[in-house]
Amino acid sequence: MDKKIKIGIIGAGRIGRVNTLSIKNFIPEVEIKAISDIDFSAAKEWAEEQGIPHAYEDYKDILKDTEIDAVLICSSTDTHAQIAIEAAESGKHIFCEKPVDLSTEKVEAVLEAVDKADVKFQVGFNRRFDHNFAKVKELIDSGELGDVHIVKITSRDPEPPSPEYAKVSGGMFLDMTIHDFDMARFLTDSEVKKVYVAANCMIDPAIGEAGDVDTAVITLKMEDGSICVIDNSRKAAYGYDQRVEVFGSKGKVEVENDTPSTASWSTSEGVFCEKPKYFFLERYIDSFGDEIKSFIDSIINDKDTLVTGIDGLKPIEIGLAAKRSHEEGKPIEL
Amino acid sequence: MDKKIKIGIIGAGRIGRVNTLSIKNFIPEVEIKAISDIDFSAAKEWAEEQGIPHAYEDYKDILKDTEIDAVLICSSTDTHAQIAIEAAESGKHIFCEKPVDLSTEKVEAVLEAVDKADVKFQVGFNRRFDHNFAKVKELIDSGELGDVHIVKITSRDPEPPSPEYAKVSGGMFLDMTIHDFDMARFLTDSEVKKVYVAANCMIDPAIGEAGDVDTAVITLKMEDGSICVIDNSRKAAYGYDQRVEVFGSKGKVEVENDTPSTASWSTSEGVFCEKPKYFFLERYIDSFGDEIKSFIDSIINDKDTLVTGIDGLKPIEIGLAAKRSHEEGKPIEL
Amino acid sequence: MDKKIKIGIIGAGRIGRVNTLSIKNFIPEVEIKAISDIDFSAAKEWAEEQGIPHAYEDYKDILKDTEIDAVLICSSTDTHAQIAIEAAESGKHIFCEKPVDLSTEKVEAVLEAVDKADVKFQVGFNRRFDHNFAKVKELIDSGELGDVHIVKITSRDPEPPSPEYAKVSGGMFLDMTIHDFDMARFLTDSEVKKVYVAANCMIDPAIGEAGDVDTAVITLKMEDGSICVIDNSRKAAYGYDQRVEVFGSKGKVEVENDTPSTASWSTSEGVFCEKPKYFFLERYIDSFGDEIKSFIDSIINDKDTLVTGIDGLKPIEIGLAAKRSHEEGKPIEL
Amino acid sequence: MDKKIKIGIIGAGRIGRVNTLSIKNFIPEVEIKAISDIDFSAAKEWAEEQGIPHAYEDYKDILKDTEIDAVLICSSTDTHAQIAIEAAESGKHIFCEKPVDLSTEKVEAVLEAVDKADVKFQVGFNRRFDHNFAKVKELIDSGELGDVHIVKITSRDPEPPSPEYAKVSGGMFLDMTIHDFDMARFLTDSEVKKVYVAANCMIDPAIGEAGDVDTAVITLKMEDGSICVIDNSRKAAYGYDQRVEVFGSKGKVEVENDTPSTASWSTSEGVFCEKPKYFFLERYIDSFGDEIKSFIDSIINDKDTLVTGIDGLKPIEIGLAAKRSHEEGKPIEL
Repeated sequence: MDKKIKIGIIGAGRIGRVNTLSIKNFIPEVEIKAISDIDFSAAKEWAEEQGIPHAYEDYKDILKDTEIDAVLICSSTDTHAQIAIEAAESGKHIFCEKPVDLSTEKVEAVLEAVDKADVKFQVGFNRRFDHNFAKVKELIDSGELGDVHIVKITSRDPEPPSPEYAKVSGGMFLDMTIHDFDMARFLTDSEVKKVYVAANCMIDPAIGEAGDVDTAVITLKMEDGSICVIDNSRKAAYGYDQRVEVFGSKGKVEVENDTPSTASWSTSEGVFCEKPKYFFLERYIDSFGDEIKSFIDSIINDKDTLVTGIDGLKPIEIGLAAKRSHEEGKPIEL
Repeated sequence: MDKKIKIGIIGAGRIGRVNTLSIKNFIPEVEIKAISDIDFSAAKEWAEEQGIPHAYEDYKDILKDTEIDAVLICSSTDTHAQIAIEAAESGKHIFCEKPVDLSTEKVEAVLEAVDKADVKFQVGFNRRFDHNFAKVKELIDSGELGDVHIVKITSRDPEPPSPEYAKVSGGMFLDMTIHDFDMARFLTDSEVKKVYVAANCMIDPAIGEAGDVDTAVITLKMEDGSICVIDNSRKAAYGYDQRVEVFGSKGKVEVENDTPSTASWSTSEGVFCEKPKYFFLERYIDSFGDEIKSFIDSIINDKDTLVTGIDGLKPIEIGLAAKRSHEEGKPIEL
Repeated sequence: MDKKIKIGIIGAGRIGRVNTLSIKNFIPEVEIKAISDIDFSAAKEWAEEQGIPHAYEDYKDILKDTEIDAVLICSSTDTHAQIAIEAAESGKHIFCEKPVDLSTEKVEAVLEAVDKADVKFQVGFNRRFDHNFAKVKELIDSGELGDVHIVKITSRDPEPPSPEYAKVSGGMFLDMTIHDFDMARFLTDSEVKKVYVAANCMIDPAIGEAGDVDTAVITLKMEDGSICVIDNSRKAAYGYDQRVEVFGSKGKVEVENDTPSTASWSTSEGVFCEKPKYFFLERYIDSFGDEIKSFIDSIINDKDTLVTGIDGLKPIEIGLAAKRSHEEGKPIEL
Repeated sequence: MDKKIKIGIIGAGRIGRVNTLSIKNFIPEVEIKAISDIDFSAAKEWAEEQGIPHAYEDYKDILKDTEIDAVLICSSTDTHAQIAIEAAESGKHIFCEKPVDLSTEKVEAVLEAVDKADVKFQVGFNRRFDHNFAKVKELIDSGELGDVHIVKITSRDPEPPSPEYAKVSGGMFLDMTIHDFDMARFLTDSEVKKVYVAANCMIDPAIGEAGDVDTAVITLKMEDGSICVIDNSRKAAYGYDQRVEVFGSKGKVEVENDTPSTASWSTSEGVFCEKPKYFFLERYIDSFGDEIKSFIDSIINDKDTLVTGIDGLKPIEIGLAAKRSHEEGKPIEL
């Protein structure tokens, strides 16, 4: 392909900026032609700093630009579905941050629009592209671990969100665990049949008052007979804790957290190692680049995206079932 | 105390022999005066080899010996309760291998007899005395981890039992997970409120035909609000897998498997470490000695035993609830 | 500083290209204005691909451009000194790849020219900027390890160079160990007093026939009383092996190799981890960027460079002494 | 063999007691018939406590007992040679603690006497029997590491000895490094050709005043071309540090220190592991038992001992050469 892929970025917040930098640094096949944000000054400032030719307040200006091949939807969650539908109708390929929406109906409407327009659609489950989890998947796919029996996902944040955020985010299962639901599906290549949640509010009572939990163990019975268990906490005192263990008929694999260095030091006080990388952007920075690379690759080489519309829909369904399981105190069938 | 504690061992099978050696090697305060086994030749042979003065076919001969202070009940599970009751009535202190019995009524009868006779009673949950798990408990008790929020117990055997054994043993939850239920109670110092089991037969169909499972994830909601999750497999290809992770408000602790050496080697093929110690006796040998030491200490210094009658009863209740949870597909309140 | 620092890169080989990418991706304050290479087509091609305005065959064309503030000398070692002297005379700040030259006289001439011209001069000892070694230095500087007593540097290549290269490179001590000599000085903040080499040719006899060694243990007695020991091999079957251990009066620190992932997997065959990153560019890629960043920072903020001319000279002196020690079979005083 | 091997222990100090317990706990084929000590009350007290039939002041009483098959020489170093010679002349098999003597002449006299009497003779280099170092040796012998190129031995004590001890012990090289010299010979199966020492007194000036050093890096060129490097410190703040790394043409192996548990815990303060086992008896307790077992096995099955007279002599020669190297500041040929 001779000419560069032209991209518009919708949303100039944190993740829009991360995506800008990933493209500029690592994806020479792409040109960012425009960026939009409802806070126009944010879009304008970032566009100037990064040499992006056009900045808009309204994302529709990006969709109207017939030179633009694809959009990255990095706006707030409640706007994803509407923008995605319009983008599909404008014939743009779409990379959409997770979650696509908190309502399965809306997600289904997006998938329908994407299907009709026959554009590429990828959801921002970046962790599939992380070097550690990709290695786990590779070992499973190689057959080295045999059939998967048990998957254990540890996913703990370094700091709880504000109780306000807890409210608008759809709650822990849809905001945080959704990544883990995707991981369970990704690793097992199987769908969830039954969800059971044991959860509690143990960190911040205000989160409980906002109707949410901050500590949970979620068990997923998968269609292939395997069992996934996710443990979540909104506050790990030692930092961002992101690990996976897969146990199969022939063996197991574990991945540990990434650390700033491999140093281990010993004094009369004890033996010390580095804490995990604290901030999710630091931990997952390469995966944010690699998911966009993969999206561009699927456009250039007309391949299926590696995180499809169904991959965007299913975790919402699981998240909603998890919520019900917690509320009703019993397992929920999907 | 001037004179030695005199002990009778009931049962000359594997665990009776392990206890014999622990005492002879590490507990100079104790003299083994007699051993019994329904297979008299086994008792006799072992007694001769180890210089134990008396061997009997009938355990009652041990109970009749007024010089004997305490008995170790190492016979088959179905005989534990009856022997324990008689031993209590004979005024012997009792160390009883786990499980005390598979019926809670019988265990309660034992506890009543023990109570009435006012003798020491300790149950053989040896893992509480393991160097790794004891360190976990020490860190919890020190407050270094804050309040316990999540406990994760990995407990996987290297080889499945025969399907015949699966039948008589009471099933995986009462035979194998029972140790993990004890660990959950030990680490949290709290009681189980609700059990949920996601289990399957994935290793040996014959186990399934015998009405048992071989793979399980068990979630325990504890009275203190913490959540414990146990994962079990009857067959870990790489060996005996015995790990624990505790996550609290101030931090977490993990313990790894013990290995035959600390060697790590690297070639063009890869980087290699030792597999876990394969056999439970090799893995837990020190803890078997230490639990008997502790039992003897509670006799000599008239202290409470570290694993009480209640500690023997509760895991049976949890195990039976786990069985029901699996059968009914829903969480069971205790 | 309003305007960008303008840079010329001399040499369009591997390291010149790495430096190009580091600047373009991570150092927005810098504009690469020109690149030169005696193989003009290489310079031209790279310039076009990367949007560098000017490509030259002769580095003097870069030195003549009065808009250019600084040069990166990435040409072959035998040309470093001459180019550096001319660059200093042209008033350019200089970043010079290691080694500056294999003759101490020539290095001293460079330092004199730099001194006279009062330009910034930094030598390409990138490992000082590596996350692992920087952490070691930080722990030493913090006082946490007390006084440094012993430094152990492991530095092993994955593949031996061709015997031809062995000849022109000045031999293992000047080509490979030179980085480790710098590391010893960097970590101890002290100078070498005495060098002793125990070396051998154990990997490739052709290297021995070319008058070089491929396996060595080098002991450095430092002026502060500490002792450094370096072990080198030209061929580690498992990959690039770059580790350091520092032992002090209050403790020790070790850094391990970086690996592609943190995965550890276990099967009936054994327990496996990832091999070290194999290729030096993969292993040290961030440090190559960070050393250039640091050089630019010293220009913009008029600070001393972090790897000075003396830091370029001393390792040559040590390397030559090491060569003599090997030849004469005795320790050499510096 | 029907009857038990009868043993006399000469010396009722720390190591004599360790050997008593090893035999009583783990070597049923052996009966300890007598113990002697120049401090008779020590011998008597220990004999009573352990049920050893005879206690003597004079070791000659043990040698006179024709029922005794073998002696363990656990007295002070300066008495080893004389006792060993007499024991050989009495036809006793001999296990002699290290070092046999500080003078090579005396050691040679012992070997001659042993040879003439044709008795088994084993030197107490217990570390050969340690699980970690034995695994290293096993990997070398299996060929998995290829030809050995570099051996790195880390051997650091937790606490310096008193300066008085430093004087009588023969100095660090003969007292402490002697174990490491044995390890170098054991792992390479090759003899030392040349020794070079870089050493210093950095911990306790009183040690320096007593004419000894407390910090050293010792390089050994071996006859097979491999290079061994030992680093010693008399005081590791974090505890007893005993590690080995072997690098060969096909790979490397490393062994880490043993720790009281495998626990690793993480808080906001950092990530922590257990310190190494602090005390040499705790660290090496199993190897003390296993070396005696091996000695007994060589008697029962009339096999060569695994640590021969030559293995007792060579490290003394190397230690004396190391001393000279330090004093003369140059490498010494053996």
